[in-house]
Amino acid sequence: MMASFSRLVRFLARDGRTYYGDAILPRGISDISKARQARVIQGSIFGKYDVTDQVADIRLLLAPLALEDVRTVRCLGLNYEAHAKESKMPIPKYPVVFYKPLTSLAGPTDPIPVHPLAQQGEGLDYECELVAVIGKACADVPESKALDYVLGYAVGNDVSHRDWQLKRGGGQWSLGKGFDGWAPFGPGIVSKDLIKDPQSLKIQTRVNGMTVQESNTGDMIFSVAKTIAFLSQGTTLLPGDIIFTGTPQGVGMGRTPQLWLKNGDVVDVELEGVGVCTNKVEFTAARDAKL
Amino acid sequence: MMASFSRLVRFLARDGRTYYGDAILPRGISDISKARQARVIQGSIFGKYDVTDQVADIRLLLAPLALEDVRTVRCLGLNYEAHAKESKMPIPKYPVVFYKPLTSLAGPTDPIPVHPLAQQGEGLDYECELVAVIGKACADVPESKALDYVLGYAVGNDVSHRDWQLKRGGGQWSLGKGFDGWAPFGPGIVSKDLIKDPQSLKIQTRVNGMTVQESNTGDMIFSVAKTIAFLSQGTTLLPGDIIFTGTPQGVGMGRTPQLWLKNGDVVDVELEGVGVCTNKVEFTAARDAKL
Repeated sequence: MMASFSRLVRFLARDGRTYYGDAILPRGISDISKARQARVIQGSIFGKYDVTDQVADIRLLLAPLALEDVRTVRCLGLNYEAHAKESKMPIPKYPVVFYKPLTSLAGPTDPIPVHPLAQQGEGLDYECELVAVIGKACADVPESKALDYVLGYAVGNDVSHRDWQLKRGGGQWSLGKGFDGWAPFGPGIVSKDLIKDPQSLKIQTRVNGMTVQESNTGDMIFSVAKTIAFLSQGTTLLPGDIIFTGTPQGVGMGRTPQLWLKNGDVVDVELEGVGVCTNKVEFTAARDAKL
Repeated sequence: MMASFSRLVRFLARDGRTYYGDAILPRGISDISKARQARVIQGSIFGKYDVTDQVADIRLLLAPLALEDVRTVRCLGLNYEAHAKESKMPIPKYPVVFYKPLTSLAGPTDPIPVHPLAQQGEGLDYECELVAVIGKACADVPESKALDYVLGYAVGNDVSHRDWQLKRGGGQWSLGKGFDGWAPFGPGIVSKDLIKDPQSLKIQTRVNGMTVQESNTGDMIFSVAKTIAFLSQGTTLLPGDIIFTGTPQGVGMGRTPQLWLKNGDVVDVELEGVGVCTNKVEFTAARDAKL
């Protein structure tokens, strides 16, 4: 039997090395972003690993999974009724699925880079979401067993550019949601053993400290279990697959007046029992391609 | 300097092991599916590797990249004008992008499994496509240099279920195109050094031997170079990223009467200078989920 983590973090330590670890939190604190130390994990997160007795000081929390450990990033759209309504879209009968590339993943305090292409038009927006990480391969899993295949839960921001998503992508959403760093998540992954019911968690977004989204994962149309059961029909979900489970009402697009993110804005997405990701919007120049 | 392959294959050899190799073709033959032997490649395809003198007998060609070597699978929609018209969709101003999961990838002779979910409704369809594999990381690459980042080219079938793609996915196409095994590709990857102009290749599909799609990659709206230049704006493309570049006219949905694939149908997709993938449609039962 392998030892299992409670709150998985990936971090740059004071010794300059990067580790996986099990976050150590002061009594009464559940926000992983407050962790200053972690027990170092050795081995493979999706295979055999050990939570060792070695305690390391956290200098910086990174995306809780290394890019090499992630496979496919799926996202649900319109999975909260009030958000579907504010988006003027029909309530979905089946989960609405799109994808993000691996390169969109980022850590809980990374900047959100906004490339010149995404500075065109308008509609830079935030979406707080519960993120489920698949821990074991599954296919055709019934809803009643679906959560057994989950490694744990994080919070993420499905950063979106509404013009590119809705008007310039030929109706396909991925383009306006797939830029580098547009899926920050973390601050760690809370084991499914600690979150018995993922459908009872407060979730919210703050922009420059102002609360703009505030809901509960109990309002999802398709619960995490239903989503995994549905997605795994004819499609094998792999260890390291990540599912962004949709955002509640209150996105910038749905507000009156509309609220678009600007250069320098600071966005917090927070999930009860997990913690907060704090990412700053940073307009960038194009890079020089190098061979 | 590393030795470079001409036609990369991955195969089960007569000795029971799986290898990467450089296909050996008889003079005058360019269809990789005809290869019976290959020079074994040692090392990492996206790092340092050597084409050795060891010649192995090919028992079975596999998907030309191992799943572990692939990162993100992007696909273009409506990238041939006549196909956009037969689909009754507007000619796109920007590339229309969607994704497939890693688990959709399959080899050049694998069956196309059709899960009970995809046996519902109608619209099981084929799409022959030129597939470009990224060999080196790139971001903001200009069109004039974009092909330098390509590892090589293959042919693939973007298998699609029109009801799930267009009617039940909330407008997002990925669900009806993402089932296990619905992106067979191969039969190998022809080095970019051998295909100087990817926009001059005949491409076609046959169903049970009848030619149903017949076009030329010169008819693409967004060339491979334009596509890579566009996609790499603000989004880093990684070694092992795969791009399905869209299908020409003649898909089953666009024919009169419409032609839907049935259990047992055999589909060939063929690209000049690369070869043919031959995949049989196989209706399946649901699997038992196992922990």
